[in-house]
Formats: sequence, C-alpha cells, structure tokens
Amino acid sequence: VDFIVERPWERREAFLALNAAGEVPVLMENEGVPLCGPTVIMEYLDETRGYAMAERRLMPGHPDLRAEMRRLVDWCTRRTYEEATRVFEEERIFKMEQRGSPDTAVLRQARANVRFHVAYLGWLAGGRDWLAGKALTYADFAAAAQLSVLDYLGEVPWDASETARSWYARLKSRPSFRPLLADKVAGLPPSSTYLDLDF
Amino acid sequence: VDFIVERPWERREAFLALNAAGEVPVLMENEGVPLCGPTVIMEYLDETRGYAMAERRLMPGHPDLRAEMRRLVDWCTRRTYEEATRVFEEERIFKMEQRGSPDTAVLRQARANVRFHVAYLGWLAGGRDWLAGKALTYADFAAAAQLSVLDYLGEVPWDASETARSWYARLKSRPSFRPLLADKVAGLPPSSTYLDLDF
Repeated sequence: VDFIVERPWERREAFLALNAAGEVPVLMENEGVPLCGPTVIMEYLDETRGYAMAERRLMPGHPDLRAEMRRLVDWCTRRTYEEATRVFEEERIFKMEQRGSPDTAVLRQARANVRFHVAYLGWLAGGRDWLAGKALTYADFAAAAQLSVLDYLGEVPWDASETARSWYARLKSRPSFRPLLADKVAGLPPSSTYLDLDF
Repeated sequence: VDFIVERPWERREAFLALNAAGEVPVLMENEGVPLCGPTVIMEYLDETRGYAMAERRLMPGHPDLRAEMRRLVDWCTRRTYEEATRVFEEERIFKMEQRGSPDTAVLRQARANVRFHVAYLGWLAGGRDWLAGKALTYADFAAAAQLSVLDYLGEVPWDASETARSWYARLKSRPSFRPLLADKVAGLPPSSTYLDLDF
C-alpha cells in the first residue's frame, strides 16, 4: 500500500469526487471503485482477501462473532473517536496550530471519557484473548488506532486498567505497528510512553 | 419480528447490558448474541439469510457494489442523520415535549442540509434504478428511514429533486412500508404529504 496524505478540511475537489463525504481513509485499488471509510474498507478486504488468509484472517468466521467484532469496530471508530480522540485533536492539535487555547472544561470531560473507554477495553481484554474473542481482529486495530493517537498526546490513563495496558503492549510490539510509531505531529513531540514498547 | 419500544435516553440498565452504546436498534434472535446497530444487523441478516433470498437479496453480490452500498448506508445513517434528521428530532420533537422553543438559526441550517441530501439522493436515483445500482438494497431503506422521519415533519423539500421524489414514491408504495406510515408522534400530526402515496 502507498499512503497519500490528504487534509480533508481542505475539501479538495478531486478528493470529494472520490468520497462525497470528504472523509479519510479512502482505499483505491487499481481501476476499482473508491472504498470509503474504515468499515467499508474492512468488509472489502475480508471479502476479497479474508478466506485466503486462513488463521491470519482478521475477521471471525461465525456470524455471531462477526457481529460482536463489528459492534466493537463501530464503538471505537464512532464513540471513542467522538467522545475522546476528536476532542483532543481539536483542543490540543488544531488549536495549537491556530495559536488558540484549549477549553479546560471540555478537556476535563474528555479525560473522564477516555478513562471510561480504557476501562471498557480492559474489561473486554480481561475476559478474552483479544477484544472480540480468541483471535486478533479488526476490532483490536480499531481500538488501537484511537489509543495510539491518545497515547501520543499522553492522554491515556494507563492506571485505569492493567488488562488494557497489557493488551495494548502486545499489539504495540507487533512489527506492523513500528512504522506508525515513527509518525509525528509537527511542533508536538510524543509523550514519554508513546515509543516505549514496555511502558 | 416483534417490535419493542425502547427509550434510549432513559438508559435502562437491562438495555445497557444488551448494548453498552445504549443505542437502538438492537435485534435479539432466540438465544443468540444481541445484534447492536443498523450496520451490524444488516451484515448479520445478509450472512445468515441473504443467500437464500436469491434475487430478493438486499445486498449485491460483487464486492465493489457491496462497498458502494455500504458507503451509502453509512452516509444516510451517520451524515444525513447528524446533519438533518437528528436536528429536527431535537428542535421540533424533544423541545415540543419539554415545552421549549426551537432555535430558528439551527433549523435554517438543517433545512439547507436536507435540501443538499435530497438532491444527492436524487442524483444517485437519476443515474441508477435504485440508490446503489440495479437492485433494491439496504441503502434504499437506510435513506428512506431518514426521509420518512423528515417527511412526517414536513421537512422534505420535494421540489429539490424530481428523481428523489419518484424514487421515494416507489419505495413508499411497497407493502412493507404501510405499517410504518401508521406510526405517530403524540401531539404532532404528520404532514399532508406523509400518508399520500402519490404526493
């Protein structure tokens, strides 16, 4: 995969022609249709590549387990994002770039929300091997995507859940995670725990 | 299917135990896991019943067409809902129940948004038989679910798109739509176009 940086807030016409929603991610494959959004991409990858992945398939086979995995992907990409990640993006990154000041009441609420979301992930990870069951699935990556941004900003209260911490440490140690850890926000260095695999 | 009314804002504990997100719809089937949210239910129904439906299956067979259908379901349930339907629910239904007054600036923006969303549906329906292609799919129902609420409130500018109007008239005439049209909001009668199949 070749990654192309898109700044959705610029609302580039060529990008809006690919995805009317003007949102990332969009996956383009050869001459195929644009695949818009994390869920659409996930389902497409499973439909076109999942079966051939055998035990390394990132979606369970049984409809009940698939439903649980999809519920968690939706929870992380929509609820954790809206209630926590997006707030910090706006208050700490966008406002920094625009030389504004974060709203402390909004930050306080978002920090309480993160604590709840981390505790919930910990509760799931405590009763299962991975978030959606015995195997690593897209649910783990959906949750890790949120935690990675929050961790970069030093906004994950790791004391909220030991099982969440050890689940995330296992995921962070995987080779596929390494390149992500090299990403940087200009003018905002990562927190002390971010690069540490044994945080 | 037996329908059970749930008022998610009451945050009933027994309901939160089924769906931690506290959102409707949730589908329960015999002793199976709770199926939480429209997308999870849609994928589950297709996985467990789709193949046996043959030409009446509500999801296309090809991964590219499935991706386009899923994009539209996401667009309607998330974007059309957030930018239009939810605003009217809050401003016109919830505020009426709490004896408050709607915010006219918010309503004005939402009305501009509805016009855009109806025009987009009309653009899709104009180039295809149904929203996602040649066959009726979950995308049509996802869009109709939003339009039905908006139409009840008299908030659909049908002059914005003749192709949207004729697409919706075809859908509204289907027998499966009839029971929906009998639903009422206490104290708020439906608009004049709502019950009319030939509006």
